[in-house]
Amino acid sequence: MSLIVVGTMAFDTIETPFGKAEKIIGGSATYVAWCASNFVKPVYQVSIVGNDFPKEELEQLNARGVETEGVEIIMDKKSFFWAGKYHLDMNSRDTLVTDLNVLADFDPKIPESYQGAEFLMLGNLVPKIQQAVIEQLRVRPKLIVLDTMNFWMEDALDDLKEVLKRVDVLMVNDSEARQLSDEFSLVKAARKIMAMGPKYVIIKKGEHGALLFYKDQVFFAPALPLEDVFDPTGAGDTFAGGFIGHLAKTKDISFNNMKTAIIVGSAMASFCVEKFGTERLKEITKEDIDKRLAQFRELVNFDIELV
Amino acid sequence: MSLIVVGTMAFDTIETPFGKAEKIIGGSATYVAWCASNFVKPVYQVSIVGNDFPKEELEQLNARGVETEGVEIIMDKKSFFWAGKYHLDMNSRDTLVTDLNVLADFDPKIPESYQGAEFLMLGNLVPKIQQAVIEQLRVRPKLIVLDTMNFWMEDALDDLKEVLKRVDVLMVNDSEARQLSDEFSLVKAARKIMAMGPKYVIIKKGEHGALLFYKDQVFFAPALPLEDVFDPTGAGDTFAGGFIGHLAKTKDISFNNMKTAIIVGSAMASFCVEKFGTERLKEITKEDIDKRLAQFRELVNFDIELV
Repeated sequence: MSLIVVGTMAFDTIETPFGKAEKIIGGSATYVAWCASNFVKPVYQVSIVGNDFPKEELEQLNARGVETEGVEIIMDKKSFFWAGKYHLDMNSRDTLVTDLNVLADFDPKIPESYQGAEFLMLGNLVPKIQQAVIEQLRVRPKLIVLDTMNFWMEDALDDLKEVLKRVDVLMVNDSEARQLSDEFSLVKAARKIMAMGPKYVIIKKGEHGALLFYKDQVFFAPALPLEDVFDPTGAGDTFAGGFIGHLAKTKDISFNNMKTAIIVGSAMASFCVEKFGTERLKEITKEDIDKRLAQFRELVNFDIELV
Repeated sequence: MSLIVVGTMAFDTIETPFGKAEKIIGGSATYVAWCASNFVKPVYQVSIVGNDFPKEELEQLNARGVETEGVEIIMDKKSFFWAGKYHLDMNSRDTLVTDLNVLADFDPKIPESYQGAEFLMLGNLVPKIQQAVIEQLRVRPKLIVLDTMNFWMEDALDDLKEVLKRVDVLMVNDSEARQLSDEFSLVKAARKIMAMGPKYVIIKKGEHGALLFYKDQVFFAPALPLEDVFDPTGAGDTFAGGFIGHLAKTKDISFNNMKTAIIVGSAMASFCVEKFGTERLKEITKEDIDKRLAQFRELVNFDIELV
């Protein structure tokens, strides 16, 4: 079992009603790697960072079984930087700063040692880059999962539609699903998106959980009701990491196992939001994960025989 | 097993993006009765209507085991009338007309034949009226469920707090739970509301499902993802009817059985929104209900052993 993760590794400055974190480590691939490495080794990381990215962070990831040969370090530039501020409801945020820095030059080269990986997680990036990664893989992975965002639907829709033909699972949030399909009903939206290529569509609804669509079937995973959502940054990427991590671990890509995988993703995301950045993800143990999965079972399990 | 239902029986004019229905029969107690009568007989109805309310509607309810001795008919007045228009997202609506008519005089008298009922559903009404109903019952029901709304939190908060001390289950939507508790987190909101009296709190989130809180436990029931929500009017009351109907049928008010009951409520609500008014509720059979409950099991059931 092996997993290639492509995405950003970056710095974030985050303001929430609970406080502010200055220039902490973030980026989609960072969250996916911290999360997925609980389930699968090696994780083959593909990203790009600048001279300011701490070596210790890469070493910590290496120690967890995350290979970083595919993380390009650009010595005369800075890492991607994002600053944002969440509103009180934590469901919406304002972007204050986006400094692309090294990301402007991102042209990922898949190291030879990564070839043959069975799972591929394409984090939110320029669709053409996502496509280029797929084209570099000599053996098509067993499962390709793609994350994207509204920006590409406005700016690079044709490229996005091209890459959608090549992936198995699309992961978007509810407003993105509506935008991509031009349908308000999420059931109709998922059906239209499946006609574009992906066999599976996952629609993330933040605190309202996530839906998994496959043919005429649908599965729902709730978000764990929490006392406080401290910082939602990275929750979607952590969800993706738990989802693909569980699938890579079990090597079972049946719809039934995907149900379990999105519960694992939801459980992992529920840890992510408890502290700033990746802090909580770095602390948790297998025991914590098992306990939380049991909480999810309690949360949704009911006795139909009584009806 | 027997259930007293207190609430409005009325006329509604409803406009949704799918069309308009003029002066159709609605009211909280109407929806509760049509729904709960699938599970429990007799349903003891307590309401008030005017000279314009069709006798056939009462007769149809009688034929389903709904007793209407407690439905007062005021011959020189008209029934309560509400007109509203839903926005495209179906989550919000504008009230266009509210004609209280007979509702201004509502002072329910519980018929002698209703005494001894084991379950009581208090639909959304003036809190003082809800309190007066409880006080008329010589034997306290095994379970009292109360629905209310933001209007009473602004207009009659002290009265609402009084009646909350007397009920077992409070049913509100998410914004109402936040308003009543002054807490944004629904987990914290539920805890504060439980301290006000109700042992159980159900927070309805419309298309995002419903949460059931009891002590430190929480259960989540999703809404069924539908192609179209045709008319959401009465979905909350139908949910209430399914919830208390299942409990009254099984006579089991354990937390475990309440989980099943809110799934039953969600399943019944998913029928309600498929057509205007009570139309769909009048059509469905036991077989339809069983099929839909099986769909709910498919929707949330996952295999934790795989993790």
